[in-house]
Amino acid sequence: MSKIVTGFSKLSKEEKINWLANNYFSDIEDGITTLNQYISSDKKLQQLHDEFIENTISNFYVPYAIAPNFIINGKPYAIPMAIEESSVVAAASLVAKFWSERGGFHAKVISTIKVGQVHFMYEDSFEKLQLYFNKIKSQLLNATELITKNMRKRGGGIIDIELLDKTTGMDNYYQLYVTFETADSMGANFINSCLEAIARTFNNNEINIVMSILSNYVPECLVRAEVTCKIEEFFDDKPKYYAEKFIQAVQIANVSPYRAVTHNKGIMNGIDAVVLATGNDFRAVAAGAHAYASRSGKYKSLTNAKMENGNFYFWIEIPLSVGTVGGLTKLHPLAKLSLEILQNPSAEELMQIVAVAGLAQNFAALKALTTTGIQQGHMKMHLMNILNQLEANLHEKEIITNRFKGKPVSHNAIAYALHKLRTKA
Amino acid sequence: MSKIVTGFSKLSKEEKINWLANNYFSDIEDGITTLNQYISSDKKLQQLHDEFIENTISNFYVPYAIAPNFIINGKPYAIPMAIEESSVVAAASLVAKFWSERGGFHAKVISTIKVGQVHFMYEDSFEKLQLYFNKIKSQLLNATELITKNMRKRGGGIIDIELLDKTTGMDNYYQLYVTFETADSMGANFINSCLEAIARTFNNNEINIVMSILSNYVPECLVRAEVTCKIEEFFDDKPKYYAEKFIQAVQIANVSPYRAVTHNKGIMNGIDAVVLATGNDFRAVAAGAHAYASRSGKYKSLTNAKMENGNFYFWIEIPLSVGTVGGLTKLHPLAKLSLEILQNPSAEELMQIVAVAGLAQNFAALKALTTTGIQQGHMKMHLMNILNQLEANLHEKEIITNRFKGKPVSHNAIAYALHKLRTKA
Repeated sequence: MSKIVTGFSKLSKEEKINWLANNYFSDIEDGITTLNQYISSDKKLQQLHDEFIENTISNFYVPYAIAPNFIINGKPYAIPMAIEESSVVAAASLVAKFWSERGGFHAKVISTIKVGQVHFMYEDSFEKLQLYFNKIKSQLLNATELITKNMRKRGGGIIDIELLDKTTGMDNYYQLYVTFETADSMGANFINSCLEAIARTFNNNEINIVMSILSNYVPECLVRAEVTCKIEEFFDDKPKYYAEKFIQAVQIANVSPYRAVTHNKGIMNGIDAVVLATGNDFRAVAAGAHAYASRSGKYKSLTNAKMENGNFYFWIEIPLSVGTVGGLTKLHPLAKLSLEILQNPSAEELMQIVAVAGLAQNFAALKALTTTGIQQGHMKMHLMNILNQLEANLHEKEIITNRFKGKPVSHNAIAYALHKLRTKA
Repeated sequence: MSKIVTGFSKLSKEEKINWLANNYFSDIEDGITTLNQYISSDKKLQQLHDEFIENTISNFYVPYAIAPNFIINGKPYAIPMAIEESSVVAAASLVAKFWSERGGFHAKVISTIKVGQVHFMYEDSFEKLQLYFNKIKSQLLNATELITKNMRKRGGGIIDIELLDKTTGMDNYYQLYVTFETADSMGANFINSCLEAIARTFNNNEINIVMSILSNYVPECLVRAEVTCKIEEFFDDKPKYYAEKFIQAVQIANVSPYRAVTHNKGIMNGIDAVVLATGNDFRAVAAGAHAYASRSGKYKSLTNAKMENGNFYFWIEIPLSVGTVGGLTKLHPLAKLSLEILQNPSAEELMQIVAVAGLAQNFAALKALTTTGIQQGHMKMHLMNILNQLEANLHEKEIITNRFKGKPVSHNAIAYALHKLRTKA
């Protein structure tokens, strides 16, 4: 055995685990037990999950939870979330309830255009290139016939192919900039297949294709979600004061990138949790959202808030490329169930739900930060995690939880308190 | 039963599932079976996972896989990855092998400083505020004594507290800008607890604290990873031509934000997979990384490449706030095993490993894009997923896979081919 291996992907799962255990586990038996305790006893189910990716040896459990009581455009939802971070689902649930009593969330899709590019180098004049492009454009569209056939039936397809001169950024650099509608699918495979077919047809001796690939930057695949209430409904105690403070907190995220990153990170807690639970790609969504936050040249908040005519308004505009067909959405049984729980939404409805989850998360964070501070809720959950790690029983949990109410929680402090409790008992 | 519920969090798990099933499942029995098939039969293990967050009703399986053969600073690693997207682990493994034969990856941590802010409003002069700050600064540090005690033992703590005038961005807006070392922990709870203690002490009648919170923007918690080889080792066929094309692809990501977003998204495929597998927070890492990519005022590539003196160089610089203690790192048994597989790294070592995983992923993507195109590998995996969904047997899988070699893959085309195969048989 050696820590470098040949033909690892060809090994059986058991052989992979054995190789790993022999070379990288400190305690072989313990490690194998840990891996195995996460492997499903349902062989067919496990095989399905194994084949989603390569070299699979187990399943990483991400807690799967429900945030009920969302009202979106008048319709009730219970939102499934897959996330390992405490407080996110609790926050979502509280905020959903809060707004369900104030008219709920309103969301609408602004546009659903996706983008792909064929990047290439060309040394002759732009005029000559334009002539060639105009001549071959219909052939480029024809080249995708077989690929776009089914998509067109679903109302999608290629919107347009444009030739862009990008030589101000880089010598000899041009793009075919292709726009797509992908109906209810996220469309990555569809777009990439179209682009590669277009590139093959476009290619000639004078064109050097560098690459053909979709863009995860989708500022025109945009959704807006908002909430509004009378200012006096914003908070029981001093509603105008707290609404002002809330709005200040949003403004701060617009002027301080250090704050904006955390502000938007909190939004992504809600967004990624729904994206993952529905079998969508959270890396794609996150990349597009954060780039959108920086579109002005300065990294800013994805949400905004204001008071106007006695009302409080809070809203988000965010690009979201998600699907309800294709990818893992129907292949992962729990992703499929998530979509069923969401009442089998179209991609546009899912965009609205995801945006609402993000807005709700930001509302919870800002409300906590501008009133009690964030640590009160976090620490309660953190305390419970530490107590579980120390294998505290129910009685011990109760005593320690009461003792640390409002006090700083650290692993050592809890361990010490528990130790004292146990030696005293 | 109603689609809006009161006291949901207080219900038992079974009651939660029943409420959900009765209100939101199309097929109650099927849905409950799906949820239950993901719940561990090990009650204690399941309870542990349930308590990580709130309202947990099941576990979302994310495939957990191994990418072997990474050499980082001369030391071999098998990198655990938790990710649902096909091709990521295969790409990581191929690239690891490729570079293991060319000197491996080199990585170093540039700095490890983290940031937190107390945001506040103040209407009097900055001079007066400065006097107050200078007078109270030592008390601010003292206020965190109890919280920082253990961190200081581990070599961390508060580096400094600065008063920043932010009134150019927003009237009356100031910050306490606090820098931290958090040793092997990511430090979110530690930083937030310190900040809240500082804010309580700093507060007076003239100061209006808006909020106190860590920043996930950590441009000074930075790591660099790189690979290098002789140009002729870059590719078997026309190495200089392909190295140039590879470098062009990186340059394109530096001039085209639409491309940069996807370019960096691919990097995050590798990074988030290791971050999740080790129990770290991928939303925090992603927010920090993408904001860093936009720091120049334009969203750009996180990697860079060049040829110099006959050598090819490819490197990444990325801010990464991750921990190997605290949070879920030791609480989630599979996260703990991931750290064991990585030979129990310090936080700095984990930063290096994570950066390498990102660099490797970008290398794989750019190499595929600038040679065969991205779809060839993707489609092979996608085909297998579709065949599984259609419950193809091994024999059918073999025939269909051969038939679709190099051809566009769509669900309908595969379904049709399989149907024809079955009716013919």
